[in-house]
Amino acid sequence: MIVIGELINATRKKVREAVLNRDGDYIKALAEKQAAAGADFIDVNVGVGGGDSEEESECMKWAVELVQEACDLPLCIDSADAAVLRAGLEACREGKTHFVNSVTAETKRLEPTLAVVKEFETRVVALTMGDEGIRTETADRVECARRIMEGVRKAGIPEDRVFFDPLVMPLSMDPRNPVLTLETGRKIKEEFPSSALVMGLSNVSHGLPRRKLLNRVFLAFAVQAGFDAAIIDPTDREMIDTLYAAEALAGKDEFCMNYIRYCKDSG
Amino acid sequence: MIVIGELINATRKKVREAVLNRDGDYIKALAEKQAAAGADFIDVNVGVGGGDSEEESECMKWAVELVQEACDLPLCIDSADAAVLRAGLEACREGKTHFVNSVTAETKRLEPTLAVVKEFETRVVALTMGDEGIRTETADRVECARRIMEGVRKAGIPEDRVFFDPLVMPLSMDPRNPVLTLETGRKIKEEFPSSALVMGLSNVSHGLPRRKLLNRVFLAFAVQAGFDAAIIDPTDREMIDTLYAAEALAGKDEFCMNYIRYCKDSG
Repeated sequence: MIVIGELINATRKKVREAVLNRDGDYIKALAEKQAAAGADFIDVNVGVGGGDSEEESECMKWAVELVQEACDLPLCIDSADAAVLRAGLEACREGKTHFVNSVTAETKRLEPTLAVVKEFETRVVALTMGDEGIRTETADRVECARRIMEGVRKAGIPEDRVFFDPLVMPLSMDPRNPVLTLETGRKIKEEFPSSALVMGLSNVSHGLPRRKLLNRVFLAFAVQAGFDAAIIDPTDREMIDTLYAAEALAGKDEFCMNYIRYCKDSG
Repeated sequence: MIVIGELINATRKKVREAVLNRDGDYIKALAEKQAAAGADFIDVNVGVGGGDSEEESECMKWAVELVQEACDLPLCIDSADAAVLRAGLEACREGKTHFVNSVTAETKRLEPTLAVVKEFETRVVALTMGDEGIRTETADRVECARRIMEGVRKAGIPEDRVFFDPLVMPLSMDPRNPVLTLETGRKIKEEFPSSALVMGLSNVSHGLPRRKLLNRVFLAFAVQAGFDAAIIDPTDREMIDTLYAAEALAGKDEFCMNYIRYCKDSG
């Protein structure tokens, strides 16, 4: 499973402060830590909520350069604003396939975001929500996936670059939510077998105690359900333990070589 | 999920010694520990491999009485020998539904074991193996389940007393093994929807490092796959953590009440 390190996200209080104060050392340390822990991509989200596209773009460029000084990983440029995505990708090293996080089926966002994905030949996290926001039922989310895939085909983007996120809503709101997300993922994969599935999973445990426990068990469920990538904290040792064990148990780790090596390396 | 505490099993070296030396305090302590940790049933296996039915029967009676002094839980009388099962159940308190562990489709064992299940009105762990031993393919194991269910019906035992164990073979032998076990379980439940599924899961990790990690992630998979019971170590805190989280995430814990209470109680 592809691990996208989630720690550089300005919705987290300390990152927000670091972004506002241009504390580059803090950002670089977060990148280093995640790279050392084995992340495949580093997510970069510098949205501090001002809504000023130019300011966020400048800030994204600043952060992207820092992260690339700190490590040699491809990035996951995370913003709802296509101009910010573009600014981030322009600052990215060539020769790597980066991620855009994210596109949705929202009329306003779909085309401009896919234009950036096309131009920079990135992968893209595709959230199955549209102009109506997040819908409860599987069928509505699959319909969003269809609208996004239509745009992807129109733009001439290879389908295997699309990582659908079937969106997990808090378990505390409805006990069916986690199952619904996995089901939605399975249906999307059935309909678009060339596409991939990604999960931003921490929302599942919102409002409940021992959130990390719930998050890691849900990651195991996602592995079993055939998800290809997850946006997680790669420095959470128990989470990564669970990931390697789940891949081995789901038959996705030939001869358990990755599991055995991981156990050896993590001592 | 029903938790059957597995610790009193003479295949474990210390238990074997306690059985041979008639060290009642050791057996009682294991029962108390498992009851305190929240086990629903206590498995009792005193087979030290002599093959003497009378001696094992006497020993089973001894152990059953000790366990019942130590706690008030129903038992899971564990032997391949119908006479030993009978001796254990005769020593069991009335007014509880106990378990027999186990029946198989083996010609020699099927009828005599089911006769005991019928007489003592117990539940039964039904291993999906027959005269040919354990077969690799799902279809062969489902065929064993059919043979057992035929015997169950002939004996007039209610079908919901039957807990099929689709048998987990070591992941280290074949990466398909865990997936195969879950698939076999799903197929059996499809064919016999009144029956239940049980898993004796520790075999999955045989020969691999960090066995407890693999065991608990596989327990999460089993919960998701609809298993009703597991034979596990209830004193393994991380295992029980995983169990509560998995049940909540699988939509089997209305309003997450059990999960929240567990988090509160376990501090």
